[in-house]
Amino acid sequence: MEQLFVIKIGGNVIDHADALHNFLQDFAAIRAPKILVHGGGKIASRIGEQMGISANYINGRRVTDAATIDLVTMVYGGLVNKKVVAKLQSLQCNAIGLTGADGNILPATKRPLVYPVIVPNSTNTEEDAASRPPIDFGFVGDVLAEKMGIEPLRALLAAGFVPVFAPLTHDGNGQILNTNADTIASTLATGLAGNYNVRLIYCFEKKGVLENVADESSVITLITKEKYQQLLHDNKLFDGILPKIDNAFSAIDHGVKEVLIGDASNLLQNVTDQTIGTLIK
Amino acid sequence: MEQLFVIKIGGNVIDHADALHNFLQDFAAIRAPKILVHGGGKIASRIGEQMGISANYINGRRVTDAATIDLVTMVYGGLVNKKVVAKLQSLQCNAIGLTGADGNILPATKRPLVYPVIVPNSTNTEEDAASRPPIDFGFVGDVLAEKMGIEPLRALLAAGFVPVFAPLTHDGNGQILNTNADTIASTLATGLAGNYNVRLIYCFEKKGVLENVADESSVITLITKEKYQQLLHDNKLFDGILPKIDNAFSAIDHGVKEVLIGDASNLLQNVTDQTIGTLIK
Repeated sequence: MEQLFVIKIGGNVIDHADALHNFLQDFAAIRAPKILVHGGGKIASRIGEQMGISANYINGRRVTDAATIDLVTMVYGGLVNKKVVAKLQSLQCNAIGLTGADGNILPATKRPLVYPVIVPNSTNTEEDAASRPPIDFGFVGDVLAEKMGIEPLRALLAAGFVPVFAPLTHDGNGQILNTNADTIASTLATGLAGNYNVRLIYCFEKKGVLENVADESSVITLITKEKYQQLLHDNKLFDGILPKIDNAFSAIDHGVKEVLIGDASNLLQNVTDQTIGTLIK
Repeated sequence: MEQLFVIKIGGNVIDHADALHNFLQDFAAIRAPKILVHGGGKIASRIGEQMGISANYINGRRVTDAATIDLVTMVYGGLVNKKVVAKLQSLQCNAIGLTGADGNILPATKRPLVYPVIVPNSTNTEEDAASRPPIDFGFVGDVLAEKMGIEPLRALLAAGFVPVFAPLTHDGNGQILNTNADTIASTLATGLAGNYNVRLIYCFEKKGVLENVADESSVITLITKEKYQQLLHDNKLFDGILPKIDNAFSAIDHGVKEVLIGDASNLLQNVTDQTIGTLIK
């Protein structure tokens, strides 16, 4: 099978003009089918402030109300996405900017209400839980991976387009939904795993997963399932990285060949066999 | 050759939720290859006001400064375009939202500075003209029709996508440009005229071109070149409609089969042989 790269960049690249320019230059230079997924960075918050839309958080998660879904549709789907597309086109990369609504590639369902949990052996009582209202995350979409539009996406790749995805999906009833960019990247990678040898690359603020967070040179270059068990047993991994590695193995269990976590500035090295980030397989 | 419809809607449809809903329902029901081009309506001005971006006009034309091109990239390319796409998807129409940067379909050139004109036999003198600065329309794009990406657009149509264009183009050097939606529609129609029997439909605030502007029932149902000369000779057409008819004949001279000017609410009738708007051919 042909190789394909699904590459996700976040705010640490999007928010810095020089970093973004260098990254897009490298991305454009990759000689293989490829897909870019971008986050929104801080631009949505900045424009939201200008418009008088204040960010609303519940348990550290941003709640997407009606004003906010319009804001992120504009900023992620318009401003960020189309600027990236225009830049890539100037670098002879035939980018086409998409959300999950376009071509119905990423159908999703609006996240259901989350009810307060009664924690066993805690001071939480059933009455406590009942007195707290359920959390409504608003216009947040959970991707329906089994309904992903694999055929339209393959048609775009076959026609030579380079899809660039904003972190937005839709509910099939006309509503755009806000969706985590990491999830979009892993869904696309998994969906295409039957047709391509997929390497899913998460660009990260460090060179890779570090054995010692204080030491940038301590990159763990390869994590297999056995190695992961060993690292967990030895308590070598900091908490924040565990969900990323769990997600990586989930993608691999669904057919993705390998997942790489690395620095955006090392992209050209990390699409070769001599990776310098953390390869998970 | 197969029939194709290129349909342009403007602010009178975009700005009214009910009118837009009814229009998209009709558009989705058309059983032929089709392309939608939308304007931005008043939404960009409203959001610009919220953000403290004031509209800047020179000689009645909006000047697109740096803040404004970001604004319209967000609003036309993100908010309006992706809402239309999500609505069409909910109506089982496989829409894909694009700007002219996507797939490099509409390369353009930034409009050059316009220098003040010395009007002969007027009080304008050369010194007057020299004392006035040239007009810089800012980030406005004039489409390079001969460089249009016909092949990528045909590939999208062949794959069953329904392209939905926002009125934006790009300069090939990474800059998005603001471009008139009527011009985008006629450029797309002309570019595809070698591959399809194209009917270009401009949705309008009236049923068609009226012989008597005060009488909605006086629609001129057919304008040929001969008829147009006659109407001009008889002074039957109001000034505002002349550029639209001139543009229509220009599209026809470049291979478009026919141009229709009609009310958005008559769309389903106007894609048949029994048109009720003004057919120009």
